[in-house]
Amino acid sequence: MDRNALRYALKRPIGIFDSGVGGLTVLKALRRKLPHRDFIYLGDTARVPYGRKPAAMVAEFAYGITEFLRQADVEGVVIACNTASAAALPELARHVSIPVWGVIEPGVEAAARMTRSGKVGVIGTKGTIGSGAYQRRLEQLGLTVWARACPMLVHVVEEGLASSPESELLLHHYLDGRAEIDTLILGCTHYPLLHDAIQRVAGDSVALVDSAEALAQAVNGSMDPEPAGGGAGRIVHFVTGDPAAFAHTAEVIGEVAGEVVPLPVTELIRLQARAPRFAAG
Amino acid sequence: MDRNALRYALKRPIGIFDSGVGGLTVLKALRRKLPHRDFIYLGDTARVPYGRKPAAMVAEFAYGITEFLRQADVEGVVIACNTASAAALPELARHVSIPVWGVIEPGVEAAARMTRSGKVGVIGTKGTIGSGAYQRRLEQLGLTVWARACPMLVHVVEEGLASSPESELLLHHYLDGRAEIDTLILGCTHYPLLHDAIQRVAGDSVALVDSAEALAQAVNGSMDPEPAGGGAGRIVHFVTGDPAAFAHTAEVIGEVAGEVVPLPVTELIRLQARAPRFAAG
Repeated sequence: MDRNALRYALKRPIGIFDSGVGGLTVLKALRRKLPHRDFIYLGDTARVPYGRKPAAMVAEFAYGITEFLRQADVEGVVIACNTASAAALPELARHVSIPVWGVIEPGVEAAARMTRSGKVGVIGTKGTIGSGAYQRRLEQLGLTVWARACPMLVHVVEEGLASSPESELLLHHYLDGRAEIDTLILGCTHYPLLHDAIQRVAGDSVALVDSAEALAQAVNGSMDPEPAGGGAGRIVHFVTGDPAAFAHTAEVIGEVAGEVVPLPVTELIRLQARAPRFAAG
Repeated sequence: MDRNALRYALKRPIGIFDSGVGGLTVLKALRRKLPHRDFIYLGDTARVPYGRKPAAMVAEFAYGITEFLRQADVEGVVIACNTASAAALPELARHVSIPVWGVIEPGVEAAARMTRSGKVGVIGTKGTIGSGAYQRRLEQLGLTVWARACPMLVHVVEEGLASSPESELLLHHYLDGRAEIDTLILGCTHYPLLHDAIQRVAGDSVALVDSAEALAQAVNGSMDPEPAGGGAGRIVHFVTGDPAAFAHTAEVIGEVAGEVVPLPVTELIRLQARAPRFAAG
């Protein structure tokens, strides 16, 4: 479908983006809550993974993608990626005139509600943990924080190895030395796929916060369930890499819910050229 | 630089491709042997990794890329990726009029020369090992084969974790149960970066075959050191993903040796549409 046809087929969609397929866990959660809304999902598979890239680079990606979504007439933008949320927010939200939701604030709030001991853990990519975004917000709320970068976990999920010896080995490596916590934020939208393995390794005394679910609740709380004139619950996926390859990787997360349209990454790079200087840079 | 300017700037270059940055180990080895030749390196970063994708899909990628390189007037094509070599060869070579080298045959031949016990191991991606390409060729030579898919190792390398606890953990997991072998083929162009860790885990009694090095020797043996009229040793990298993201990931392998030019993946998908049906499909 061409870009103009799309604009008329979708009614004030909600834009969601991620470096690849991880954000599909957020899309799933959102569709359950807002079944009548239309969505545009943008998977930036030409540049996946974001997790080890410099924050300034990821912030520019986020800016270009947000511009693209804005031009597609979205009512709001959901950054369904912890690394991009950490790198681009809150600066990005100040530069655009539509609502932008990130995944960090809802996860922090959910953890603050859930913890009884006040000792909270968070795991995520190198970029997310290295940014200190979760740690800062949790500490501002008076919580004690244990944080750990788990660079291999996103790959375990995408390789379809969520339930495998590799996943157990790596989870023990990342979690066994943790401080005493009663709540653990899954600070990557891939990690809900590892929920059961993480619960096993962390033990039943640790409550897990699914940041995809927390984000979906936050968006749901501030959007009308239907756009003006009613929506059809239609989904279009734009991907910067190969649509067939995206569909194949997405199988590990769940179904691709709508049409998959290729989007040249050079188009996003052009939009980025107008990005303001981010604090992260 | 535009496509036509490139055609006149490079003299009968050698084309090399990989799913991403792994093939840079092959480019490095080739440049040492053929410093006066020009090279085009194509990194298909919009579709990386190839290792878990269906063989028929990867074979189509290889066909489209070879067509693109042929149109850029390359003298031959080097498939610097084990997964693509396993998926596309020998069928691909029959469909094009220029030489096509894959990484499997040179690795097999090197292992056959090196082994004394006749017991050879091979490790690679799911796609490479699942194809049975190495196993078949080694067995045809009368060798006893132990093979193991190691899906996480390519990610260990790209995350910059070649020397890390994660790498040790995963290597023990993949190698500790191996059969008795005296030679081990590193059947992925990322694995030379893990050479020291693999040697440590496998022990000194196991000789490692670097398939990137073996491939470079095979190409060197059948190409003139200079093209007619002399070459300048110039390199151009085409990448289907974001050039800046490519350069960043490539840092773990070594330098990016020349200009990096974006190539829309949709252009390769168009070229693939003319692909013959591969046996792999």
